[in-house]
Amino acid sequence: MADYYFGEIQGNPVGTTYASRQEAAAAGVHRVTVQGISGNRIAGAESISVNGGYEDDEDLGDEIIYTGAGGNDPATGRQIADQTLSQAGNAGMVVSEENGYPIRVMRGSNGDPKYSPVSGYRYDGLYRVDDHWAEAGKSGYRIWRFRLIRLTLREAAAYVPIANLPVGNVRPGRTEGVAQRIVRSTQVSDSVKKLYEHACQVCDVQLRLPVGMYSEGAHIRGLGKPHDGPDTPDNVLCLCPNHHAQFDLGGIYIDAQFRVRDHTGATLGPLYRKSGHMVNQDHLSYHRTRFGHDLDEP
Amino acid sequence: MADYYFGEIQGNPVGTTYASRQEAAAAGVHRVTVQGISGNRIAGAESISVNGGYEDDEDLGDEIIYTGAGGNDPATGRQIADQTLSQAGNAGMVVSEENGYPIRVMRGSNGDPKYSPVSGYRYDGLYRVDDHWAEAGKSGYRIWRFRLIRLTLREAAAYVPIANLPVGNVRPGRTEGVAQRIVRSTQVSDSVKKLYEHACQVCDVQLRLPVGMYSEGAHIRGLGKPHDGPDTPDNVLCLCPNHHAQFDLGGIYIDAQFRVRDHTGATLGPLYRKSGHMVNQDHLSYHRTRFGHDLDEP
Repeated sequence: MADYYFGEIQGNPVGTTYASRQEAAAAGVHRVTVQGISGNRIAGAESISVNGGYEDDEDLGDEIIYTGAGGNDPATGRQIADQTLSQAGNAGMVVSEENGYPIRVMRGSNGDPKYSPVSGYRYDGLYRVDDHWAEAGKSGYRIWRFRLIRLTLREAAAYVPIANLPVGNVRPGRTEGVAQRIVRSTQVSDSVKKLYEHACQVCDVQLRLPVGMYSEGAHIRGLGKPHDGPDTPDNVLCLCPNHHAQFDLGGIYIDAQFRVRDHTGATLGPLYRKSGHMVNQDHLSYHRTRFGHDLDEP
Repeated sequence: MADYYFGEIQGNPVGTTYASRQEAAAAGVHRVTVQGISGNRIAGAESISVNGGYEDDEDLGDEIIYTGAGGNDPATGRQIADQTLSQAGNAGMVVSEENGYPIRVMRGSNGDPKYSPVSGYRYDGLYRVDDHWAEAGKSGYRIWRFRLIRLTLREAAAYVPIANLPVGNVRPGRTEGVAQRIVRSTQVSDSVKKLYEHACQVCDVQLRLPVGMYSEGAHIRGLGKPHDGPDTPDNVLCLCPNHHAQFDLGGIYIDAQFRVRDHTGATLGPLYRKSGHMVNQDHLSYHRTRFGHDLDEP
């Protein structure tokens, strides 16, 4: 299992079925026969099995809310202990999110009947990891969750088997690549960026361009599900792209005294705040909790 | 014209028609009666008129390749001089791209018959500026071009008129915001990032996260149309998000001696290159040209 391979496996198009985990593993689609996630913290995660193994899983077809590995009783699927991000599969999922690696999704017959094969296992295509967060699962223990979104055809084209390519990777127009990170703006985040004149509230940098300057509005508590944060100025920070990426992936957080800390807890400095910009403590607390920074986890 | 307003204008839903430019201007949908672009380099651009005024325009419905302002003969629509980015409307379009501001699109009856009203003008909804580049137009003069992409309903919800909002802007789940910037990965860009161990080739920073590190693979000559760059390692740089954003928006470029320069031409330092990573000079030259850095323009 030393080598991981990202993207489609030659000879295994979407819809290919397998009688057993062993058969799917031999084909290379999901190369572990017990675990739900094939991956580790160095390489990233290459594939998952969606097969009803965790009580908190949600399968919506093109979107999957997947529960991380660990802490469950294989016999019942119930959580009996907290999950950690240091677990190899969970760490691999985070690395795949950070890098925009595609995840092969295989569904088994024990999953949601709406999207699962009647028997055995089926390769269902490539997804990307869109988000991850910690929460209390149905059993009360901490679980890590991952949202996966199905790739579009043009995205998936970036990870077709190399052997299928005509000449090296010179194939203009065939692919746009996988969405690794999508930065979004709202009327409210625009107003916060203007207030700070595009200066990052963490490092004070103003990125210069031939016309204008570049900054990003970071929603502290995310707008999308499950975070459902409000689109209000007290939930937005003006950040440079570097600190925005780190903030969105749990690499930095803001403590209750408005100090910026890295993920080890080391203080980097104060969060710059203009008078007139109230930053909501509850949203900062939500952000810390979602990345486990209020917990004992490293 | 001092005040600009971004997003939908109350009482003017998509499909609203106007007998004249004056009428559309009075409604606030496109508030200039002659120019194609309403905007400037401070505020950004809020709206455009698509009405066949430029010979190089391309209207694909949900996507518009729009020619910047200036240098054309209003009588014939033909280019008779170079366009500049310092022109107010063009600069406004760039600022709207950088910030993810939505652009109101109004079509007139002189545009492509497939998507244009039979007579008068019609408000056709919100678009975002996805890309801009310099090229030689049909008449040989330099034109600036802007690709606009229609917003999804969930994106457009971030810019509905404030008066329509229930309580302030607290509306979880209603919007996800406008895509301001989409970072993409490919198998090839992954390999370049791994080679550099996520260290930025411009500033050498390695962004640390709780699990792993964060960097972005920047295609020098973009993958999408009209750039049609190849997805090959010699067309990819490993950059931090800050330098990637600046590179993609023309804020930095690489000269023929592999020196990094800002948009004023000042040298920032060498581009770090690992042995075994050949960076293609033709692609660097293409990147300089698309942002006008090989031209006299500031």
